[in-house]
Amino acid sequence: MELRDLGEFELIDRIERVASRAGPAVSLGIGDDAALLRLRTGEEVVVTTDAFVEDVHFRWRNEAPGLVGRRAVVACLSDLAAMGARPLGCTLGLAVPGALPLRRFDALVRGISAEATRHDAPLVGGNLTRARETSLSLTGLGAVKRGRALLRRGSRPGDRLCVTGVLGAAALDRARAERRGGRVRYLPQPRIAAGRQLGAIPQRVACIDVSDGLLADLRHLLGPSLHVPIDPEALPLPRGFASACRRLGLDPERTALAGGGDYELLFTLRGEAPSAAQLSRRLGLPVRELGRVLRGAPRGASPGGNEDGGWRHF
Amino acid sequence: MELRDLGEFELIDRIERVASRAGPAVSLGIGDDAALLRLRTGEEVVVTTDAFVEDVHFRWRNEAPGLVGRRAVVACLSDLAAMGARPLGCTLGLAVPGALPLRRFDALVRGISAEATRHDAPLVGGNLTRARETSLSLTGLGAVKRGRALLRRGSRPGDRLCVTGVLGAAALDRARAERRGGRVRYLPQPRIAAGRQLGAIPQRVACIDVSDGLLADLRHLLGPSLHVPIDPEALPLPRGFASACRRLGLDPERTALAGGGDYELLFTLRGEAPSAAQLSRRLGLPVRELGRVLRGAPRGASPGGNEDGGWRHF
Repeated sequence: MELRDLGEFELIDRIERVASRAGPAVSLGIGDDAALLRLRTGEEVVVTTDAFVEDVHFRWRNEAPGLVGRRAVVACLSDLAAMGARPLGCTLGLAVPGALPLRRFDALVRGISAEATRHDAPLVGGNLTRARETSLSLTGLGAVKRGRALLRRGSRPGDRLCVTGVLGAAALDRARAERRGGRVRYLPQPRIAAGRQLGAIPQRVACIDVSDGLLADLRHLLGPSLHVPIDPEALPLPRGFASACRRLGLDPERTALAGGGDYELLFTLRGEAPSAAQLSRRLGLPVRELGRVLRGAPRGASPGGNEDGGWRHF
Repeated sequence: MELRDLGEFELIDRIERVASRAGPAVSLGIGDDAALLRLRTGEEVVVTTDAFVEDVHFRWRNEAPGLVGRRAVVACLSDLAAMGARPLGCTLGLAVPGALPLRRFDALVRGISAEATRHDAPLVGGNLTRARETSLSLTGLGAVKRGRALLRRGSRPGDRLCVTGVLGAAALDRARAERRGGRVRYLPQPRIAAGRQLGAIPQRVACIDVSDGLLADLRHLLGPSLHVPIDPEALPLPRGFASACRRLGLDPERTALAGGGDYELLFTLRGEAPSAAQLSRRLGLPVRELGRVLRGAPRGASPGGNEDGGWRHF
């Protein structure tokens, strides 16, 4: 059965049936003109919108529809994590072709709803339209203590650059699926708890999530007049990463630096900051120090100066 | 020049240049992982997502790109109006083909930003992707006093049904553009001030905005077990509407009842409510009483029982 066999409202019903109505912050979920979400005293609203488009961010032929939905939610909630926010809820702008199999639609929507609910960001609203290709536009809503959000700006020479988790796993998984005709299997995690912990550390300065690749996002974090020369040996890599890359004909260093889709937190610290090991305990995640912020634009020679890298959509 | 001639970040720069950074509620606008918006004490967050898709909601060949952008914003903010909310800001998920002329892109984005700013809902974030067709997913953020939002549910037999403004203007304009090869010209207005005023009236019960057409939205407002027999003579129509419809071969009554895109507020009142004339002064808009809510499902014979009508996307 295809989507064109059902009416718009029947499809919306199918979304409503899987969407959780409850959530710690939800006063009113799906079903009215808009949803209502509660903040605590002294908090402000955090809002981010992310898109996930067929043949740009995913391909039906090499990924289970449920995982497509989950990955879209992770990409969106990762932006809340990078602000140090707690999630409140999310909304979905879903565009689908009439020829989409109903089973695929159901699995996609279940994946979205399950992943969102899992992170206390239940689906509270949205919109359904037809289009020539499937695309998801997810808006994540969160809350953060007023004036305490983690911002991108503010780094200075001497600050220490750190990253959570490991880099390159998502890119390796994607490359394996593309080149070997396999399936995308890797589900990254939005670092929500770590972001909230980081926001409470006095020495923290600035933060971004690694969505486009370390080099591209480092540029967004530092701007044009600062850089960090990154020692490829210092990169935190998944176990067996280098050999797995080589088997696929990939350069491990480049894959880790430019791959994208890891959704780890990349941040700077200033002053008498805790060690990476102490931070790691605090954030509940591996933390690796990548180097110190230096004045001046990045140069081509160092990986930090690599002009390309990162995932571009045009 | 086409979009494919520019990089993703150059296009985002073009959006950022026209997006207003300021707004009464904006702590942090475009440019970070997420935006920050302030509520007042005792308020909760109102959030709604609406999509606007090429060849479904608009056609480039018969509408100026700036108007496409403005209408998309109005559709989104109208949902905030129907909740009695004050707008805080909005985000845009924009998907565009690489072949889109840059001039069209710029005009579209300027229209979006100008209309959003005009209603104190400046563009504070979003996402840009490529796609086979242009689509906009707009998320509107608003604030309302906790527990005071205008909801759809709650109407009972005996309640009076009212509507703001006039019905059918948008449908007539669309039909004229489609049948005469003209341009779409009509820009409806989100009834934000009226919605906030309505929220403060003790006799108000329930409210929805007329986006899909009066009959379809009346069904959403009343559910399956209530109806209002609507006297076609009581419909508030634009001046010269009937003859303009007939010149295009349209049935005026049907056009007003099922046309959609008016974005007027449709609401019920209970008890010693102000008269339509008093309400009109209070809301600053024409208000027409359409009838009383009756028990029972709508019947096919009365316009209120018309099964079809309303704008479906599938």
